[in-house]
Amino acid sequence: MTSSDQTTPSPVRSTQVRLAQRPVGEPGDDTYDIGPVDLPALADGQLLLRVVYLSLDPYMRGRMSDAPSYAAPVAVGDVMEGGTVVVVEESRHPEWSAGDVALSYSGWQTHAISDGTGLRRLDPSRAPISTALGVLGMPGFTAYAGLLEIGKPQAGETVVVAAATGPVGSAVGQVAQARGARSVGIAGGEAKRAALTEEFGFDVALDHRSPDFAAELAAAVPDGIDVYFENVGGPVTREVLRHVNTYARIPVCGLVSSYNATSAPEGPDRLPGFMGLVLRKSLTVRGFIQNEFTASHGRDFVREMSGWVADGTVRYREDVVQGLESAPEAFRGLLTGKNFGKLVVQVSEDPTR
Amino acid sequence: MTSSDQTTPSPVRSTQVRLAQRPVGEPGDDTYDIGPVDLPALADGQLLLRVVYLSLDPYMRGRMSDAPSYAAPVAVGDVMEGGTVVVVEESRHPEWSAGDVALSYSGWQTHAISDGTGLRRLDPSRAPISTALGVLGMPGFTAYAGLLEIGKPQAGETVVVAAATGPVGSAVGQVAQARGARSVGIAGGEAKRAALTEEFGFDVALDHRSPDFAAELAAAVPDGIDVYFENVGGPVTREVLRHVNTYARIPVCGLVSSYNATSAPEGPDRLPGFMGLVLRKSLTVRGFIQNEFTASHGRDFVREMSGWVADGTVRYREDVVQGLESAPEAFRGLLTGKNFGKLVVQVSEDPTR
Repeated sequence: MTSSDQTTPSPVRSTQVRLAQRPVGEPGDDTYDIGPVDLPALADGQLLLRVVYLSLDPYMRGRMSDAPSYAAPVAVGDVMEGGTVVVVEESRHPEWSAGDVALSYSGWQTHAISDGTGLRRLDPSRAPISTALGVLGMPGFTAYAGLLEIGKPQAGETVVVAAATGPVGSAVGQVAQARGARSVGIAGGEAKRAALTEEFGFDVALDHRSPDFAAELAAAVPDGIDVYFENVGGPVTREVLRHVNTYARIPVCGLVSSYNATSAPEGPDRLPGFMGLVLRKSLTVRGFIQNEFTASHGRDFVREMSGWVADGTVRYREDVVQGLESAPEAFRGLLTGKNFGKLVVQVSEDPTR
Repeated sequence: MTSSDQTTPSPVRSTQVRLAQRPVGEPGDDTYDIGPVDLPALADGQLLLRVVYLSLDPYMRGRMSDAPSYAAPVAVGDVMEGGTVVVVEESRHPEWSAGDVALSYSGWQTHAISDGTGLRRLDPSRAPISTALGVLGMPGFTAYAGLLEIGKPQAGETVVVAAATGPVGSAVGQVAQARGARSVGIAGGEAKRAALTEEFGFDVALDHRSPDFAAELAAAVPDGIDVYFENVGGPVTREVLRHVNTYARIPVCGLVSSYNATSAPEGPDRLPGFMGLVLRKSLTVRGFIQNEFTASHGRDFVREMSGWVADGTVRYREDVVQGLESAPEAFRGLLTGKNFGKLVVQVSEDPTR
């Protein structure tokens, strides 16, 4: 008997993107360490997952940093975290079979071993499986719960959102309209601006890079702003705040304009002026992370948003880049507004297409 | 018949404090113009009111300015606005008699003519009539409604308030305790600090002028801060914000530290950091003017707060200065923390004492 006759299976190799060091400012190539690991053989109760789609989202910049946050940072040397859609390649778990498709949190890698914890089965016949990372997933739920629970748009009110071609912003505008409100979307560049009205049906679309942005915004909100869904911060927010009405609501789900900031911005100090506005206008400013609302709104979201996507009330756009090795560059673009729609990395073949 | 025999009554003379010019920074003596006017004779349906107490409140600084606000400014040349307790000197109104005591909004003057609009009858047998300007009036209601409706303190939670010997702050701390929360009061100077625990029963009292204030605050809130009732702004608020818990609530009813500011404060720009905190901690920041809650909470306030004052659950302190001519100097002191307790000007004799 020679060694070539032994039936020891060759180990499954996963390619991983690990955090090599904490970035200062924009995450460069030296932020990451990309390489293979051999996965151990499956034990009883375990699954081998192949990552099909990896979600890239702005919150991941926070995970790279050890500054105070709502979640612990990724440890240096660990695989970058992230939501994924996976297919089960091999199962020694009674509830899963090879070929099953699931939402998981497997991170930036090609394969992973799981004991099933946190996996959510996906039904490919109901919607494209990648939507579980976007309009029917965390970004869509962020928009839905934050807008409805905090923003509370009423029929006829004006809702403004920036980064409006993104998966959160585009859902905010469309859900607002489904509730009878008027939606004003802000995006960067003419192509995105045009898509806001043509593709997503916003009532008004604005390009914040326009030299006349301030005047265009003023013209777009003749009755003021009742809800500003805050996901960018910075100069766009400052312009928007000039137009908020008394009792306006400002759900705060992100501040992507500042995620790469390395120092406190130069003065003047705008905080006292902002607090004065909060007082004068009786504003409600409320930060949130979507999982706060999972128990209270998760079921309604699945039902209502799935229906809206199925009947075309809510449309979505995906920006799919190919190959795990493309993730670092794509993520840099996400933080600077270069992508267009929900950014996902296709890591391997989609078995449902 | 000589002219001296004619029975034309001599006109009633009211001394008025009028806004002479809009102040820049701290209101100086040249802000005001003090002088008499002859009031016309009463017509049918009218009342002659004598002002007994005039309330001085921080919001009046806003009324002196024509910067955007939630209320129109006092016009230059007009009598300064303000809440008052008045006694009816003469009545040609069917519902009012000489000697009746009422809460009114007669402003900084000794006498006024009214048609009864906005007068609220006071019962001197229930509480000292000056309390209608303080613990049982607008400041007390600001504390009550803002704390309960926005702050929503739960038993065992930690509530922090600054300017805590003032009429709003002292009520916030005591109402928080009545709801089972732990109260931490912040005031300026040792005498006020001592009064917070000895007089108002705060659980912990801090002097923000202490060189060790930051460390003392940290030690006072070992479980973090669940409610920060914001009425001052500035450096005290910045220290407090270091300790807010996830889901903390920040009712914003005033920003007295900045009311005399003449320009945007120097940088760094603290707004992005604040918004980051709002996001990270899922904070609720809500500005309000107390009259928003009159319809929903006014009746409960009267019932509950009157009971608390009567049974000693809520105690209050008044700082009474004598004579309308003292109002300008007293108001300057109010904006810089010089007074101690609810500031009222006794304009004329209190008929109930």
